[in-house]
Amino acid sequence: MKKKVAIGIDIGGTNTDFGIVDKEGNCLSKFRIRTDKYEDVLLYLDELTKNLKQQIKELKGKYDITGIGVGAPNGNYFKGTIEFAPNLKWKGIVHLADLIEKRMHLPVVLTNDANAAAIGEMIYGAAKGMKDFIVITLGTGLGSGIVVDGKLLYGHDGYAGELGHTTVEPEGRLCGCGKKGCLEAYASATGITRTVIEMLKESDKPSILRSIKKNNISSKDIFLAAQKKDEIALAAFEYTGYILGIKLADAITFSSPEAIILSGGLANAGHFIFTPTKKYMEKYLLPFFQKKVKLLPSKLTKDNAAVLGAAALVWTNKKR
Amino acid sequence: MKKKVAIGIDIGGTNTDFGIVDKEGNCLSKFRIRTDKYEDVLLYLDELTKNLKQQIKELKGKYDITGIGVGAPNGNYFKGTIEFAPNLKWKGIVHLADLIEKRMHLPVVLTNDANAAAIGEMIYGAAKGMKDFIVITLGTGLGSGIVVDGKLLYGHDGYAGELGHTTVEPEGRLCGCGKKGCLEAYASATGITRTVIEMLKESDKPSILRSIKKNNISSKDIFLAAQKKDEIALAAFEYTGYILGIKLADAITFSSPEAIILSGGLANAGHFIFTPTKKYMEKYLLPFFQKKVKLLPSKLTKDNAAVLGAAALVWTNKKR
Repeated sequence: MKKKVAIGIDIGGTNTDFGIVDKEGNCLSKFRIRTDKYEDVLLYLDELTKNLKQQIKELKGKYDITGIGVGAPNGNYFKGTIEFAPNLKWKGIVHLADLIEKRMHLPVVLTNDANAAAIGEMIYGAAKGMKDFIVITLGTGLGSGIVVDGKLLYGHDGYAGELGHTTVEPEGRLCGCGKKGCLEAYASATGITRTVIEMLKESDKPSILRSIKKNNISSKDIFLAAQKKDEIALAAFEYTGYILGIKLADAITFSSPEAIILSGGLANAGHFIFTPTKKYMEKYLLPFFQKKVKLLPSKLTKDNAAVLGAAALVWTNKKR
Repeated sequence: MKKKVAIGIDIGGTNTDFGIVDKEGNCLSKFRIRTDKYEDVLLYLDELTKNLKQQIKELKGKYDITGIGVGAPNGNYFKGTIEFAPNLKWKGIVHLADLIEKRMHLPVVLTNDANAAAIGEMIYGAAKGMKDFIVITLGTGLGSGIVVDGKLLYGHDGYAGELGHTTVEPEGRLCGCGKKGCLEAYASATGITRTVIEMLKESDKPSILRSIKKNNISSKDIFLAAQKKDEIALAAFEYTGYILGIKLADAITFSSPEAIILSGGLANAGHFIFTPTKKYMEKYLLPFFQKKVKLLPSKLTKDNAAVLGAAALVWTNKKR
């Protein structure tokens, strides 16, 4: 019998990464195209499927391709659509799963990128063997994938798990979604940058970060500054962890997971973000939840995480 | 074939209500004993089972008793235990489901009281036909039962759904659980009373409520004052709805339910609590969730709600 493999497609605002992955999480092939180059989704799909077919051809029939998993911003699992994604050029509702299925003649399962990351951790990463856990992706925004009893929590319409848009401060920072005080306006790569800019303005403390133009400060710069014990950078991580910790405690109170896994750019700051987050998460937990829930880093290799997550959808899919 | 019935037992800090219920939600019999009279759980069980057996005897063998459902504070579904319940006299861990099973020779399913209320709404009440919804009980505290895809959300240890202990204000009111700023310290019968006491202290506005001794003000008094357009009472409902609305928006963002059902004493205040809660819930929702989620009152008759909820557990139980 031929070995089973799956195709994983991770659609980001800038790039689309895709590859063929086996059940052990080995990437047999990988390729990238620009997402933002194609105003027309059909032209994008032409390029995508041409490349996928080339990858399949290179396998020389040695593998059995089970299906295709797609992680996409604003992806809806129930409908296989991308709906009103602010970071993509394709407007309105795009029936992406159907469009790929017709071209590739393989079953397609599509969900949002953070949900794909959660399944990736369950099949290949830090959540192996767990049935109840939450993955938080700390990138430009804050995404979340909530797994309950081994299955993604979708809610009645497929949109559950948008923890980035829970409220931290009712009259707080304006979020990209249009409302005020969302968690992702504080706890994300852009959120910590906003915190640093506020702190630089409100204090006279010396900081390496003052030498960078305000609009150019990145979360990477803040991380590098924190490594040099820059007070503003350290205070920004402490504050980010405070906000994130309180909201993770809320999430635990909701679904009582075994672990919360932090992934994405900001999570790569390691103890700078994990230590304060863990401290405040414990502080704001109902006493009988305290010291029971693990806070873990992702175990997916950075380079392949998103493609692995998308491919992993295929192994857990019972729906399509 | 005999008609199937279930026994429902609702254990409260003061009273225990129990009765025999059919699948249509008719209470065939009902009885009450004091919970707080028995320091020893075994003596309590003697009284409970004596009464239950009497009720069964009165059915004269006309019905088939499928099982027993128990709703209890700090009830753990997985273990059938009551664990460290602050409002009960039985300390530590009580293996109540096993103890009842041994005495009654019927399968027993036990869960916490708010979870039982949720199943009651699904089988007999406002959530009939729904698979994704949340029930919030606004009594002395704030309980919650979260139903996902037709099943109660238990999490990895059976303790999911403690929304009363999510954080509203990190340095806010001290909660009975020991931490600060919990939702139930604001949105509950005792929470709204605390709000009124604060408001009376901080303002000079005339209020009917000034004529009641501070420690005697009940949520019923506040409701009656609101009916008379008392400004303090109305402001207290507005504030309670503001806090509750924001946290319900968070809950929707988490599990994307079709509806949220408010039950319990404070929910009986009708539009005084529903109108501000709905207003702020919508305001603090991620735009694409807005105007989609219903906020409904319980449809269980007040007198039998808790017993119906407990009995309903029997019809949905696949575990024990």
